[in-house]
Amino acid sequence: MTFVDLGFARVDTDRKRRRGFPEVIYCEGKTPEDVAAIAATIFEQDGVVLGTRAGKEHFEEVARVLPQAKYHTRARCITLEKNPVPKNEGMIGVLCAGTSDLPVAEEAVVTLEIFGNRVEKIFDVGVAGIHRLIAERDRLEACNVLVVVAGMEGALPSAVAGLVSKPIIAVPTSIGYGASFGGLAALLGMLNSCGSGVTVVNIDNGFGAAYAAATINRLLQPKTKDADSIAKTVEP
Amino acid sequence: MTFVDLGFARVDTDRKRRRGFPEVIYCEGKTPEDVAAIAATIFEQDGVVLGTRAGKEHFEEVARVLPQAKYHTRARCITLEKNPVPKNEGMIGVLCAGTSDLPVAEEAVVTLEIFGNRVEKIFDVGVAGIHRLIAERDRLEACNVLVVVAGMEGALPSAVAGLVSKPIIAVPTSIGYGASFGGLAALLGMLNSCGSGVTVVNIDNGFGAAYAAATINRLLQPKTKDADSIAKTVEP
Amino acid sequence: MTFVDLGFARVDTDRKRRRGFPEVIYCEGKTPEDVAAIAATIFEQDGVVLGTRAGKEHFEEVARVLPQAKYHTRARCITLEKNPVPKNEGMIGVLCAGTSDLPVAEEAVVTLEIFGNRVEKIFDVGVAGIHRLIAERDRLEACNVLVVVAGMEGALPSAVAGLVSKPIIAVPTSIGYGASFGGLAALLGMLNSCGSGVTVVNIDNGFGAAYAAATINRLLQPKTKDADSIAKTVEP
Amino acid sequence: MTFVDLGFARVDTDRKRRRGFPEVIYCEGKTPEDVAAIAATIFEQDGVVLGTRAGKEHFEEVARVLPQAKYHTRARCITLEKNPVPKNEGMIGVLCAGTSDLPVAEEAVVTLEIFGNRVEKIFDVGVAGIHRLIAERDRLEACNVLVVVAGMEGALPSAVAGLVSKPIIAVPTSIGYGASFGGLAALLGMLNSCGSGVTVVNIDNGFGAAYAAATINRLLQPKTKDADSIAKTVEP
Amino acid sequence: MTFVDLGFARVDTDRKRRRGFPEVIYCEGKTPEDVAAIAATIFEQDGVVLGTRAGKEHFEEVARVLPQAKYHTRARCITLEKNPVPKNEGMIGVLCAGTSDLPVAEEAVVTLEIFGNRVEKIFDVGVAGIHRLIAERDRLEACNVLVVVAGMEGALPSAVAGLVSKPIIAVPTSIGYGASFGGLAALLGMLNSCGSGVTVVNIDNGFGAAYAAATINRLLQPKTKDADSIAKTVEP
Amino acid sequence: MTFVDLGFARVDTDRKRRRGFPEVIYCEGKTPEDVAAIAATIFEQDGVVLGTRAGKEHFEEVARVLPQAKYHTRARCITLEKNPVPKNEGMIGVLCAGTSDLPVAEEAVVTLEIFGNRVEKIFDVGVAGIHRLIAERDRLEACNVLVVVAGMEGALPSAVAGLVSKPIIAVPTSIGYGASFGGLAALLGMLNSCGSGVTVVNIDNGFGAAYAAATINRLLQPKTKDADSIAKTVEP
Amino acid sequence: MTFVDLGFARVDTDRKRRRGFPEVIYCEGKTPEDVAAIAATIFEQDGVVLGTRAGKEHFEEVARVLPQAKYHTRARCITLEKNPVPKNEGMIGVLCAGTSDLPVAEEAVVTLEIFGNRVEKIFDVGVAGIHRLIAERDRLEACNVLVVVAGMEGALPSAVAGLVSKPIIAVPTSIGYGASFGGLAALLGMLNSCGSGVTVVNIDNGFGAAYAAATINRLLQPKTKDADSIAKTVEP
Amino acid sequence: MTFVDLGFARVDTDRKRRRGFPEVIYCEGKTPEDVAAIAATIFEQDGVVLGTRAGKEHFEEVARVLPQAKYHTRARCITLEKNPVPKNEGMIGVLCAGTSDLPVAEEAVVTLEIFGNRVEKIFDVGVAGIHRLIAERDRLEACNVLVVVAGMEGALPSAVAGLVSKPIIAVPTSIGYGASFGGLAALLGMLNSCGSGVTVVNIDNGFGAAYAAATINRLLQPKTKDADSIAKTVEP
Repeated sequence: MTFVDLGFARVDTDRKRRRGFPEVIYCEGKTPEDVAAIAATIFEQDGVVLGTRAGKEHFEEVARVLPQAKYHTRARCITLEKNPVPKNEGMIGVLCAGTSDLPVAEEAVVTLEIFGNRVEKIFDVGVAGIHRLIAERDRLEACNVLVVVAGMEGALPSAVAGLVSKPIIAVPTSIGYGASFGGLAALLGMLNSCGSGVTVVNIDNGFGAAYAAATINRLLQPKTKDADSIAKTVEP
Repeated sequence: MTFVDLGFARVDTDRKRRRGFPEVIYCEGKTPEDVAAIAATIFEQDGVVLGTRAGKEHFEEVARVLPQAKYHTRARCITLEKNPVPKNEGMIGVLCAGTSDLPVAEEAVVTLEIFGNRVEKIFDVGVAGIHRLIAERDRLEACNVLVVVAGMEGALPSAVAGLVSKPIIAVPTSIGYGASFGGLAALLGMLNSCGSGVTVVNIDNGFGAAYAAATINRLLQPKTKDADSIAKTVEP
Repeated sequence: MTFVDLGFARVDTDRKRRRGFPEVIYCEGKTPEDVAAIAATIFEQDGVVLGTRAGKEHFEEVARVLPQAKYHTRARCITLEKNPVPKNEGMIGVLCAGTSDLPVAEEAVVTLEIFGNRVEKIFDVGVAGIHRLIAERDRLEACNVLVVVAGMEGALPSAVAGLVSKPIIAVPTSIGYGASFGGLAALLGMLNSCGSGVTVVNIDNGFGAAYAAATINRLLQPKTKDADSIAKTVEP
Repeated sequence: MTFVDLGFARVDTDRKRRRGFPEVIYCEGKTPEDVAAIAATIFEQDGVVLGTRAGKEHFEEVARVLPQAKYHTRARCITLEKNPVPKNEGMIGVLCAGTSDLPVAEEAVVTLEIFGNRVEKIFDVGVAGIHRLIAERDRLEACNVLVVVAGMEGALPSAVAGLVSKPIIAVPTSIGYGASFGGLAALLGMLNSCGSGVTVVNIDNGFGAAYAAATINRLLQPKTKDADSIAKTVEP
Repeated sequence: MTFVDLGFARVDTDRKRRRGFPEVIYCEGKTPEDVAAIAATIFEQDGVVLGTRAGKEHFEEVARVLPQAKYHTRARCITLEKNPVPKNEGMIGVLCAGTSDLPVAEEAVVTLEIFGNRVEKIFDVGVAGIHRLIAERDRLEACNVLVVVAGMEGALPSAVAGLVSKPIIAVPTSIGYGASFGGLAALLGMLNSCGSGVTVVNIDNGFGAAYAAATINRLLQPKTKDADSIAKTVEP
Repeated sequence: MTFVDLGFARVDTDRKRRRGFPEVIYCEGKTPEDVAAIAATIFEQDGVVLGTRAGKEHFEEVARVLPQAKYHTRARCITLEKNPVPKNEGMIGVLCAGTSDLPVAEEAVVTLEIFGNRVEKIFDVGVAGIHRLIAERDRLEACNVLVVVAGMEGALPSAVAGLVSKPIIAVPTSIGYGASFGGLAALLGMLNSCGSGVTVVNIDNGFGAAYAAATINRLLQPKTKDADSIAKTVEP
Repeated sequence: MTFVDLGFARVDTDRKRRRGFPEVIYCEGKTPEDVAAIAATIFEQDGVVLGTRAGKEHFEEVARVLPQAKYHTRARCITLEKNPVPKNEGMIGVLCAGTSDLPVAEEAVVTLEIFGNRVEKIFDVGVAGIHRLIAERDRLEACNVLVVVAGMEGALPSAVAGLVSKPIIAVPTSIGYGASFGGLAALLGMLNSCGSGVTVVNIDNGFGAAYAAATINRLLQPKTKDADSIAKTVEP
Repeated sequence: MTFVDLGFARVDTDRKRRRGFPEVIYCEGKTPEDVAAIAATIFEQDGVVLGTRAGKEHFEEVARVLPQAKYHTRARCITLEKNPVPKNEGMIGVLCAGTSDLPVAEEAVVTLEIFGNRVEKIFDVGVAGIHRLIAERDRLEACNVLVVVAGMEGALPSAVAGLVSKPIIAVPTSIGYGASFGGLAALLGMLNSCGSGVTVVNIDNGFGAAYAAATINRLLQPKTKDADSIAKTVEP
């Protein structure tokens, strides 16, 4: 049997074997009770839980059932690991333009770490003070992949693309005055980036960017490691 | 009598006296015959003509009536001066991100010059190669006002705002791949610029940016010059 | 060292020296604790604090740490000055169309004043009663720059542009019935203004308009004043 | 029999009896042959034809069949009357902001006249020169209804509403720079007009505005006239 | 003196003399205290108050100052009259498609009545049961003007236009499932109505439709009545 | 008499006779008291009530008046039947992509069942694990019609259309990260489905999809059953 | 082998066996040579060809290769049948609001007929003259399914849904004045239809509506007919 | 000197040394003469030219100057290499949903090849026939990166993400019926993909996707190869 039927959901308990990481729980729009039931099922099977877009009320219900669960307030994530995953080689950089973008950047960080990656955090380096970014050039170039988070006009990925030659995954955030239209301005800015090598994920989707970055980073792991176990470690 | 009635239009022949510059002809949506008739009326009265958004067909009809008229192909402008206006003090910088933005940048240049301003052209300095922009820092800081033209994600004004402390008038252009949506991406990017001191005009509106820049530059002219004559020189 | 690392933010403590005004805190999306910590760092360094988009909860936390901080309820701003900045020469006019636009207009006023400018307030002069605006013509023409705030169809800047020849910075507000679409109607109206010399900032961005206006006004300060100190006074 | 079946269309030949005016032909998207066949059927029955959005190719085919048909180039309308309709009492004002709006204004004029109304044309009175509009105040107040045509930011109806107390039907046009988005800016501006008493029709829909104005004007015709014949005269 | 300066607002106390009705208070975005102060000023001068978009909190503050003020819960309006206005001749019909549209329809009714008009309410006649509408044909035709309120696809005005020959002012509402996009669907539907004679106001703007209808109805009042007093009665 | 006039609503008590099912109450935007009064009127007449988009507060008021009423929390529906309707032949499948789509899917289920249909629920079969969907192929093909509910990119209907040849009614939901724009992404995705035979209803409109599916299923009922009673059973 | 590889395309020559109808060629964006090569491959295999969105240039190239091919000018379709398909039982109604909607309606008709269905055409029955539609009630009710095509406000499906109880597939068209925004107004109108039982396909997608209608009609074919051959006849 | 000044453009002749590939020419909006002049300058310096979005008229002018230049009609690209670049290890897969998406897919292929990559073309595998895609699973999994091109609802990347665990770069195309809105539907679909690991580039931007894919592939090249020369080979 490859799934557990909870009535309202089919938890894919075979996923970790096939894909290396159990199902991730997108909490928004689910009741706390549903989230807790799914989390318990996944944890029993796989020993690792990641819940994104989790409110305090989701966490409290999960913690009632799984008391060791941890809540990342800024990132709005719930995590729980029976045994920490051994870390991959290489760094993934997570940049953000301003402190208001922190929740999205932190969602990316939490996701990357629980997927077994080392993270280099380079926060608060918006283009208004371009020298701060230029000063970080070496740390940027030392990463395998860069997740670049920015709201408002979303110009940071273009600037980063002008400085380094690594793959850049841009995450627009919904931060900004009226005509940001909930992140549309940053999204369009990033899609139209004149900086080559930039690809884009959904608004505020730190998780999605982290997932894509982890997928690229996995390609770079040494062949001497057991291929199967790598798969188990990285890929959700 | 402060206007000439052509039946289909009332040419405001009093405007140059009141505002320093005759009516500017927005040619789009007008027939070549209408444009030529308006141009002739203005020229007879004021000795200066500026037509924007002019197609070849507009120019040909104007040139039939006013053979000295000049056509600026890239800028799509028609100009004609009986006697060249004496130039204002100070420079106005016109920047553009890429060569595809040239028509809009040139519309700004043509407008600024016929309004009596000196123009510093700094073209092809997009953020993909930020060092090219940084190298121009001194020329930028030497201008009184900067008109910054960019398509795609429209990030150039933010980068310029990070480098210099002059007023910046940003002009989004309709250049770009699909999701630029006719310049919407650049427009939103500029409106959401994290670089302070940036204000924005309509998509592809090189004329409007030039007009606003000229209005600011006029404030800076020495008081020793006859105030009235300045008004006549600069303001349309 | 040119910044203080608070873990979640890099406060640019060198900014006042370089640009004349310390970093401004955009409070929306930041926790009250983050805002208070940044404010304290800036105040210790520079003696001046401006927080925009600040809720009551932000102010209360700031006031716990910096008890002299002042909250501008309508403007939703926090300010604090060790020693008041000496005022620049010349006036900057701030106009608004209706009383519902007051919060945005007041944000512009608070920003302008703490940047060292004198402000002429001309409120509640919407185009529905155009004679009220015409009656203020002399006060308008006496200003160096005009910040014009309006919601709904955003027609006020066009009307002002028809009356005076000063630079106009238009601020659309999100005030209006359904099809204002959160200020989009006013924004598009202002971008398409037939009145020349109008430039536009983001919806409800009274701060941005004030910043741009202050940048223009600084150009007009007498050369006899110490250039450096002007820079310190005006530019954020 | 109340209609003629042409295979591809059912011409409502009973309409003039019921509503006072035969069916109007919206030519866009129809072949010239279809338009000509419908026009001939209507003319035979009712003696009056109005085709809107007609291209040159539509007119030429109609003129082959109905040689007296007249083409209004600017308005892009085809008209043909066996016997001119006697005119209603009272004037309907048609205003437009600029000469680029003329095609839409002329469509309104052509429609109003063939529906039996007297028209007062007040063209080229945009808000950039508000004094030109104010000078026309008496002619405006003398009309029963006003059709106000404007592109760009569409501010003219608000200004007119501030001056006179007559019903105003606003027509946005698709004239303008990029961010007019095909007339969307003017449409939203007019829908959000702070001037009371303004109602709006579709972009470039001079015909629709004229129809609505004629419907209002008909209410005002003296009761001594035969009610039935009024119906025949005015209402399409 | 033609206005009272409250510091935050200029109450146009001359308006009733000029236009027949005092200033209407748009309460949204104003504090309860501001609304109460404006209401008191207007009431003292003119004896009539209309506040639209008023929340319970606005009303309670107004009622503290003006205890006879009345709150219309559905319409979200505050009214107060020293002496009831004598009613105009003729009826104005107010239709709505469903009971969810009632708040907007009632705003129109309250406005029309305090402007001195008789109102015929024809509610809950959506096109899903077209026979209910057809059954009301005579009552519809007996009105001078029709205000037609509908959400969802906004098809009711088209259906009404097919039945009667009176001016129709369409009001889209924000009622509907997701893709109504806050009333955009109904707004576009009405602007594109194939039924001639339909004009449109802003989403949920029952007040604006009522104002326009009252303006038309005023044209129809007998000349034997004192023109001046009519103006005072109808026009806001 | 074919309706009961409640003052604020006309309850169409003749509807069940004509169409087989009484009026359905769309609760959003109605007060609890209005909903309860309408429900009581319908129940007295027809013995069956369905209220959609009902909040807890609507249910509580209805339950005060009709204590046997049942509230479906996920579906946000109120139902009440005097005597259960006999079920139609054939199954209607209701699929959803993820557990966050459950509220919309359940609204469809509740509606289908009270309209007399048997429902096959196939939940949590999103395209991210296409094998789960393929495994259900036989159950899918055994249904007469399929209601397919999905948020995010809305790709599930395309995948289903590639597997089976039954009519598919797609329901986009408002579930998703920022650029789902309240369900717009899923809506456009479904409208552009490359899978033939897919038609679409409004965002989150589980009720509408169920209604359309029931209408199709009714066509398939055996002719030996009394046609009239079928009509009564199925069609609202 | 289940497909033929043309290098640039894989023609699914197994489709007719599996689904009853060969692949349909969507011609837009393909070169005439590509279309002709695909058409020839399909025709050789299956003896039936349908090309939609075909320009004259596509047809001419196809006709060079397959001289019996037929071009439907209005519908912009290419068809070719070796042996005509026997017709299914029952009628499918195709309605359109105006003659400008004919191309889309005809695309539906051509598709339905070549899929083996009988079609009842009911054209030019827009809601502006609702009596014309009511007069067709019996013909409408006699159909199994209705395809309803309309542009502008797209109100026709709502009106039809109020009259008959059959499944309705609504097709918005791109016909209309400016604010139809290429059919968006009609699309939103249909998605928000208050008439129950309405589902919607893409703008101008007469083919898609026909396909869905044919899928429903196939469910109704008598079981005595060979099930396999039915499948072959109807389903593409 | 690191650039050549052509007056209208600054050709970055230092780029190949710094980034491994000379500047790419985006031809749209440039005159044929400009493109030819830039191409000649780049070719002289670097021996390799890539022009995207090139019309026939651009190619003809380039070929006049550089007769060996090659035009890729479908891809609308101009290429020219003095000496072919040695190919990188590993494959990059380029998939497209339908033949109408070929121009965009081919732009990606041309770009990848001239950047030194081996390409696996898997065309015409849309989700309507999901078995065709599943059959290609091994070829897909054998690639390092996948570029997935699709129009309409853009569901292909989600389906691919469900099958393989490689990085996926999704390219929406502007192909589709009306409500694709120039590719917006596909773009939003891809941004909202429920398939993890998907990142997105601009509409029709095959070049951008290829660039990003090449950047990832470069990370995977063996360290034994000279790092510098790899940089020269791959990165533009």
